[in-house]
Amino acid sequence: MITLHHLNQSRSKRILWLLEELGQAYQVKAYQRDKVTFLAPPELTAIHPLGKSPVIEHNDLVIAESGAITEYLINQFASHLAPESNSTDYVSYIQWLHFAESSAMLPLLLRLFVEKDGCQTNFMAGYADIEVAKVIGYLNASLEGKRYLVADKLTGADIMMSFVIELLAARGELAKYPNLERYYKQLNTHSGFTRASEIEAQQNTL
Amino acid sequence: MITLHHLNQSRSKRILWLLEELGQAYQVKAYQRDKVTFLAPPELTAIHPLGKSPVIEHNDLVIAESGAITEYLINQFASHLAPESNSTDYVSYIQWLHFAESSAMLPLLLRLFVEKDGCQTNFMAGYADIEVAKVIGYLNASLEGKRYLVADKLTGADIMMSFVIELLAARGELAKYPNLERYYKQLNTHSGFTRASEIEAQQNTL
Repeated sequence: MITLHHLNQSRSKRILWLLEELGQAYQVKAYQRDKVTFLAPPELTAIHPLGKSPVIEHNDLVIAESGAITEYLINQFASHLAPESNSTDYVSYIQWLHFAESSAMLPLLLRLFVEKDGCQTNFMAGYADIEVAKVIGYLNASLEGKRYLVADKLTGADIMMSFVIELLAARGELAKYPNLERYYKQLNTHSGFTRASEIEAQQNTL
Repeated sequence: MITLHHLNQSRSKRILWLLEELGQAYQVKAYQRDKVTFLAPPELTAIHPLGKSPVIEHNDLVIAESGAITEYLINQFASHLAPESNSTDYVSYIQWLHFAESSAMLPLLLRLFVEKDGCQTNFMAGYADIEVAKVIGYLNASLEGKRYLVADKLTGADIMMSFVIELLAARGELAKYPNLERYYKQLNTHSGFTRASEIEAQQNTL
């Protein structure tokens, strides 16, 4: 049995989707963000010292970091969600998998922090906007004529990227990026994705 | 032949180290940050649309993202730099590999941006300090009694983490974290690491 420690409105949403794709028994332990501070509750630190989500438990392992969880679960249970190792597609696959959590997330989170902070920055706000446009524009261009990021099939890279796409969708920004808008519709054709959205909606108290 | 597109004072330093460990022929193409803005030069966008470094070329592949480059090069040339796949150590290994670029980097970069910006934030500065203390404290605690992150040997996880450690060392912050200070000394016992530092110093014009 796999256990997902799931925090509402977090990167954990994509691990919910991945779990839906595995066909393995799993359970969700739900945690709620503080309604004022938006911070994760202290109970999560009992599971992993960083107090973050997603964290999964499987056998005697406790595993953190979305990218590591994705690589682990796909290695264990779902080789169909990755291209053949040693293929050129596999190289694209691991690039997108890392991109989703490094190059893409940093500017998106920087912009979010600047907005939430509300302070008058000297360059940060403008820098965040430029970097968001650059990385999301690159992603949009890379999806030209494609249904999925790699190999014309759903892979762990798309599941990792879904959190980035949902962040943009929640802000109404997909209309600026036609390929991303189409890609988001494509992700929504997967019953595992819509089921994850239902579970998230049930758990989310914000 | 592997080509590394290397930007001074960047995450590319760790790929230099990794290349030194491989025993494969490689060449470095050096790029310099702008002395005023600290931004990467536009020439890098000719190599990869994001205009970032590290980027490597190998055979006909152009590969970005430190984590993906590390996974690719170790898979191709250096299985001794990763634990056995399917081992418990491998699960730790991929967690640290992702941690080095996601959980660890976000607060460190947020703090750096806030400092460089110089604006009076409402919560960002304090939040960044708290998060840095949390993730770096966790890393320090995890290295208690250990020479390396995983399996008592040098792996790609240490090479990925070296950039985080060097960021802290450059700010004189390692003294607060005894295990990290010792770990940094351990990394320095590797001739590949010191050789990478020499190459970086030769290339770096800042």
